[in-house]
Amino acid sequence: MQAIVLTDESDPRSLRLGSVPTPQLREGEVLVKVHAAGVNRADINQAQGNYPAPPGESEIIGLECAGTIADPGTTSRSIGEPVCCLLAGGAYAEYVAVPEGQLLPIPEGYSMAEAASIVEVACTVWNNLGQIAGIREGQRVLIHGGSGGIGSFAIQCAAAMGAEVAVTASSEEKLRYCKDLGAHLLYNYRESDWSRELKNTVDIILDVVGGPYLEGNIRALAPGGQLITIAIQGGAKSTINLGLLMMKRLTVRGTTLRSRPREEKATIVAATREAVWPMLADGRIRHHIHETLPLADAARAHELLDSGAVTGKLVLEV
Amino acid sequence: MQAIVLTDESDPRSLRLGSVPTPQLREGEVLVKVHAAGVNRADINQAQGNYPAPPGESEIIGLECAGTIADPGTTSRSIGEPVCCLLAGGAYAEYVAVPEGQLLPIPEGYSMAEAASIVEVACTVWNNLGQIAGIREGQRVLIHGGSGGIGSFAIQCAAAMGAEVAVTASSEEKLRYCKDLGAHLLYNYRESDWSRELKNTVDIILDVVGGPYLEGNIRALAPGGQLITIAIQGGAKSTINLGLLMMKRLTVRGTTLRSRPREEKATIVAATREAVWPMLADGRIRHHIHETLPLADAARAHELLDSGAVTGKLVLEV
Repeated sequence: MQAIVLTDESDPRSLRLGSVPTPQLREGEVLVKVHAAGVNRADINQAQGNYPAPPGESEIIGLECAGTIADPGTTSRSIGEPVCCLLAGGAYAEYVAVPEGQLLPIPEGYSMAEAASIVEVACTVWNNLGQIAGIREGQRVLIHGGSGGIGSFAIQCAAAMGAEVAVTASSEEKLRYCKDLGAHLLYNYRESDWSRELKNTVDIILDVVGGPYLEGNIRALAPGGQLITIAIQGGAKSTINLGLLMMKRLTVRGTTLRSRPREEKATIVAATREAVWPMLADGRIRHHIHETLPLADAARAHELLDSGAVTGKLVLEV
Repeated sequence: MQAIVLTDESDPRSLRLGSVPTPQLREGEVLVKVHAAGVNRADINQAQGNYPAPPGESEIIGLECAGTIADPGTTSRSIGEPVCCLLAGGAYAEYVAVPEGQLLPIPEGYSMAEAASIVEVACTVWNNLGQIAGIREGQRVLIHGGSGGIGSFAIQCAAAMGAEVAVTASSEEKLRYCKDLGAHLLYNYRESDWSRELKNTVDIILDVVGGPYLEGNIRALAPGGQLITIAIQGGAKSTINLGLLMMKRLTVRGTTLRSRPREEKATIVAATREAVWPMLADGRIRHHIHETLPLADAARAHELLDSGAVTGKLVLEV
């Protein structure tokens, strides 16, 4: 089959279509013919050599896709069934092997391109805000990087759960976009000190910045508050004051979705389907595709995402 | 009434008996005639001016006591009923006002001195290991400072829950004491590198050291593991690597009991009574009093506890 491969391992721009073996199915897996694959920041890190595939998983890039079942393996699925998939890798290809627990139905009214680019973000956001943080009506939630793929989904999901949503972003334009999605409190981090304005008031923070924001995040959290770091775009290391953590009874967590065991992913997928799929069907969460490109243009898609000029998701079509 | 007061606010050794007003009852409180009060490290910090009473709470030292109800206030309790109490303060005195939700029965077979000195540690340990960390059979739990008041209780509680218990302590003698209490893996932190020997294997850590142990604790935690810091005897500040937290999906928490709202304390007290009181009654958890002193000798009790030579609890008798 055709798949995106790194022709020069030292050059992340060397992503090209190449020929690779079609995946062999293992117990409980189905073979999905990929129609569209979502592009994620983690894909860029993988192309740069900084985020290798978990042991035993496909080394092809791509954490989510939509398509049709080409071979149901030992499952009771039907050939031709449309699905979207949470993957540990392998989406940038014509075919991918998927554990049955990581299949989801195409959300009502969604195209393949839309479905392909919503799975990773939906599972990530629901696992963190819903399953881990236990988001409740009336809580204040702070979303950093509100206009990005994770951020724009998290704003809508938190607002749909009845939370008061605060966001940070780098420009007035991005903040207007966040406001349109339902954010209530808007902070341009170049011009205001969000951590002092929100001091001691935030119940849950979903963070993608990491080290440079840790002190401010701890300042912003209310007693009993929770910080969940899901990316470290600003760096990993920081100083932490455990005395403050005690006094405010705070929780600081790091999470990733990709490295979870398959059984945990199946639980996350099932919870996300139950909580989030109805929000997609009735429009409480809208999904915005920034641009759709051919699979062969993976390198250009990565460059575009890395430029920071993308609001919404990028999709590769096979 | 008589109570322990700081006669010279700048000198923690100036704790003396003095005359103060008997507490006035607020709604939902009972007046307890104190027979015995437990001594905790937090009491030393308070005498040193480093751990003031929460707003609205008694400024008298003492976080736990046992005694009899002298005035039931508006509750349906009986005068003379024996109780032990979780307090935000006020135990180093003849009388203390206690919210009804913070009363517990005297554990079966316990003396007043024993009951007075088990409440704070029992609520602290169960809140953290049971309610927050959700300790389960077969998990590996690491207890730092295993021979102290919190440590020796936590070892027995974790072992009673079916966990494999690892401890650190400063001498072979203290480690033998921990082993007698049920600890399975013993580390003399002066002679071995517990964090490398336990690397990636510990599910829950109960820490009283803080900053200097953070890096080692994160190394020792297994994927999905939890660190709970309940004291910072070695210092508050440390460097943290949020990338490691993400890769291992770790949780770092700080907690304190004293500053919780009364409703939360009532929930903790109820959960502790249900889970831990049976363990006290049937001997799965043994309680060791190091020494009982008269209330007037509070300063000497603090000096003794601060010396590090205490295994088990100190009690002041009124």
